[in-house]
Amino acid sequence: MAAPSSQSCTALERSIRERVPTLLTDLYQFTMAYAYWRSGRHNEPAVFELFFRDNPFGGSFSLFSGMHDCLLFLRSFRFTDEDVEYLRSVLPPATDPAFFLFLRELDCSGVTLHSVPEGMVVFARVPLMEVSGPLAVVQLLETSLLCLVNYASLVCSNAARFRLAAGSRRKLLEMGLRRAQGPDGGLTASRYTYVGGFDMTSNVQAGFLFGIPVAGTMAHSYVTSFSSLEEVWPQVSLLAANGDHDNIDLISLTKGWLGRVCELLGVESGKIHEGELAAFLSYAIAYPHNFLPVIDSYSVTCSGLLNFCAVALSLFELDYSPLGVRLDSGDLCRQSVEVRHVFRLCSEQFSIPAFQSLLIVGTNNISEYSMAELNKKENEIDVVGVGTHLVTCTRQPSLGCVYKLVEVRGSPRMKFSEDPEKSTVPGRKAVYRMLDTEGEDTAETREKVQSSIQTLHPRHKRLQEPDSYIVSFKVCLLCGDMEQRRGLDSLWYWIERHLTLGHSHPAFRQCKCTHLYTHTYARTHLYTVRH
Amino acid sequence: MAAPSSQSCTALERSIRERVPTLLTDLYQFTMAYAYWRSGRHNEPAVFELFFRDNPFGGSFSLFSGMHDCLLFLRSFRFTDEDVEYLRSVLPPATDPAFFLFLRELDCSGVTLHSVPEGMVVFARVPLMEVSGPLAVVQLLETSLLCLVNYASLVCSNAARFRLAAGSRRKLLEMGLRRAQGPDGGLTASRYTYVGGFDMTSNVQAGFLFGIPVAGTMAHSYVTSFSSLEEVWPQVSLLAANGDHDNIDLISLTKGWLGRVCELLGVESGKIHEGELAAFLSYAIAYPHNFLPVIDSYSVTCSGLLNFCAVALSLFELDYSPLGVRLDSGDLCRQSVEVRHVFRLCSEQFSIPAFQSLLIVGTNNISEYSMAELNKKENEIDVVGVGTHLVTCTRQPSLGCVYKLVEVRGSPRMKFSEDPEKSTVPGRKAVYRMLDTEGEDTAETREKVQSSIQTLHPRHKRLQEPDSYIVSFKVCLLCGDMEQRRGLDSLWYWIERHLTLGHSHPAFRQCKCTHLYTHTYARTHLYTVRH
Repeated sequence: MAAPSSQSCTALERSIRERVPTLLTDLYQFTMAYAYWRSGRHNEPAVFELFFRDNPFGGSFSLFSGMHDCLLFLRSFRFTDEDVEYLRSVLPPATDPAFFLFLRELDCSGVTLHSVPEGMVVFARVPLMEVSGPLAVVQLLETSLLCLVNYASLVCSNAARFRLAAGSRRKLLEMGLRRAQGPDGGLTASRYTYVGGFDMTSNVQAGFLFGIPVAGTMAHSYVTSFSSLEEVWPQVSLLAANGDHDNIDLISLTKGWLGRVCELLGVESGKIHEGELAAFLSYAIAYPHNFLPVIDSYSVTCSGLLNFCAVALSLFELDYSPLGVRLDSGDLCRQSVEVRHVFRLCSEQFSIPAFQSLLIVGTNNISEYSMAELNKKENEIDVVGVGTHLVTCTRQPSLGCVYKLVEVRGSPRMKFSEDPEKSTVPGRKAVYRMLDTEGEDTAETREKVQSSIQTLHPRHKRLQEPDSYIVSFKVCLLCGDMEQRRGLDSLWYWIERHLTLGHSHPAFRQCKCTHLYTHTYARTHLYTVRH
Repeated sequence: MAAPSSQSCTALERSIRERVPTLLTDLYQFTMAYAYWRSGRHNEPAVFELFFRDNPFGGSFSLFSGMHDCLLFLRSFRFTDEDVEYLRSVLPPATDPAFFLFLRELDCSGVTLHSVPEGMVVFARVPLMEVSGPLAVVQLLETSLLCLVNYASLVCSNAARFRLAAGSRRKLLEMGLRRAQGPDGGLTASRYTYVGGFDMTSNVQAGFLFGIPVAGTMAHSYVTSFSSLEEVWPQVSLLAANGDHDNIDLISLTKGWLGRVCELLGVESGKIHEGELAAFLSYAIAYPHNFLPVIDSYSVTCSGLLNFCAVALSLFELDYSPLGVRLDSGDLCRQSVEVRHVFRLCSEQFSIPAFQSLLIVGTNNISEYSMAELNKKENEIDVVGVGTHLVTCTRQPSLGCVYKLVEVRGSPRMKFSEDPEKSTVPGRKAVYRMLDTEGEDTAETREKVQSSIQTLHPRHKRLQEPDSYIVSFKVCLLCGDMEQRRGLDSLWYWIERHLTLGHSHPAFRQCKCTHLYTHTYARTHLYTVRH
């Protein structure tokens, strides 16, 4: 998935048009566009840069995502008659009617997007996208491009941190749709957490649109909806997988196994919930190949685990292969160890080697912190499901990307500010990154993410207090176009105060900078919007 | 807006179908539905309750929102052939093909929704919605209903807290689209922050869809795109509002005013940015009735404020009424006081009474905390724009609503858990709230929110360390249907441990409870889905 396949491109483009209608932007984009148009400046060539000011989650890097959606948005950017009529109703009455004809004709045919490739490791203050084209048009794009990059990059980066915390072995399931910030927040989360390193999602629409593997079996409500074995139906229809038996009485078979399991573990059967056993049996009858129940609806050790073992042993006897269990509350590490212990006992006692390696899935409000703890504590969890903390990025729910004008008519622009960190570095940037090893250029964004993260030294990947990745800015004081910097009197003083000057790395020797440039970053790639 | 007008209902319903396609749910809803169907239980009458476990943001209340969208979703709930084909490809191969015919025929005609009215004050663990209908169908609705209620209620509650922090006088502008968690997150935020107490949004699509007032004038990029007065065009075309003058040379007029302002304030004109003056003039020519520039692109006191005053004085001379200024960085309180001081000086010196009451808009990463600070510090800010912290709810980006089965075939259901706080109170609840004063039943959700908040004692509205609003649960131990509680052996012990028993408020004397009920809440309203 990641880079949308040609097959799903039309659906994605339609989805972008629905999710990001051209009016989904700030009103001031239109008042500014009008003022540009009114003064005849709307077609002046202009350049904006999109970047963020601080790496998220206290880390030293981020991942860049959302660019494919930006391309689709640019391709479909156009105002309908209805849009224009609405704008006419909210813009000041003094607005020249000819401006609305101008809006009606607009598209992005004159816009060029230079961008870091989707899924690459990026750093604070490095331009992620450079958008150039007619001043009024590139101004109008601001809010939508920010909206498409901000959350996609944030949640992708969050997923990468969960993956770093989990290690590469454990499978990760995203299951945050119900807690996401709106339906589209959920869909975007499923898409970009997969890019960021998750293996599966619970979100069916994400599977449908993006081909992400989907997973899920049952909730507590399913278990608690059953109260007795009388609700199991059909009671005698389960065939053995090998076709050997017919009309097996699965309830009697399982009751037999339940007795043997209780005996093996030396536990009383008094606290076993009949309803839970009924729920497990019904599910096993429906999906004998995919049996993975949630076992903590009442009590793991007094009921859920025993019921699971009994049904799973019946399934093994009938030549089916149950999958495992899900734990959704309490101390997941401790419980997983207990569950694995029981699996091993059953495996030995009943001579079923596969029983000891049944899957244990853990889901219980997992945060990056608790994920990292999993690697420190003894546990037997094979798959971790993560929801709220992953998709809403509780630790920092916004990346804070900005979109700043850096050049008009070939002349660099700068914003000063009462807050020094809000000032911008003027002019277009050439972006380089010095790599000790050269990463491969894979077609698959998801793999690209992992190989991009590989290019980082472990000291920058530490989740707590990582070393900063130094991003240097170098100013070419010798280049001949000083006259273009008219009006930027205090720029040099500002740059001297804020930036690293005179970087002498040999890589710069052959570099032909035009105005100012940023040092330290991977190759930029050029994407041009076609119509 | 709020309750969608009949006019916009079709657009909203279409929008819901696009934003919440029926596949936007968790896979396990389908595996469970299949297991219910396979055991012939899919049409058993079942009841789920939707609630949250803790009040958000450390407060003592929340606001309930999203119900109208839930109704639209229920009305349009239906699977297409394409949906069903996709489900066939991801559900286990053992799935009976007849199940897909069953899915294809499903709708919500058998579903009834009891709900707290949209926009009401609600509390932790009180049922917000009760969804009853055929077991398989109400199970399938879980994820979508949660997704629609969770964020809408969270961001509406967040807005209400910002409103409480700001007081009722100050105007509040929502401007978070670019930082929202996805495009729809931005749209949902604009909609429900307006319901929660904001006055305007920058989001044009939200204005278009929901009729929310939209606002905005210019960004820094507009200001920095100008470098000299030569870019002002047309230079001599501004007519006086009263039609008295023709072909006024606005640049000369403004230069004259700039000299007088500098003299009045005793400042040098050396640091004044010509490009900024050009930007202001161009905007004033485009929108002489709507002049409200951002004045901190270079320096408020050395450039932006002086340029503003000069242009504004020219506009006043031509009988236009400029609106005011926006501050977007630095210490907003201190600067607003300085700006107001200058406005007053100009007002007196040049005999323009309206000059002293020009608007001052403040926007700079405003949080609930900094909003509350505004009420403590001296300042002159009339309008506050809020983005990131409002829409992404940085303090707590998820409400954590859950959807729990409470009854099947008239018999109460309960989930126990390894985490006691995850256990549920079984059975349907009747919800009451004791009110000292009776709130009015207004049609307008936004006003309802404010009147609903009025019903809370100030001690519950405190933003920091509020007193808890006591929600009591009372169990009718005397009612005659004890036999329905078969299988819930340890329920009573659990309830004795966790809940307040034996509440003796007189309001309960006439109350006919059927099983268990929740005390303390406003009237519940009944909404039925019609087809």
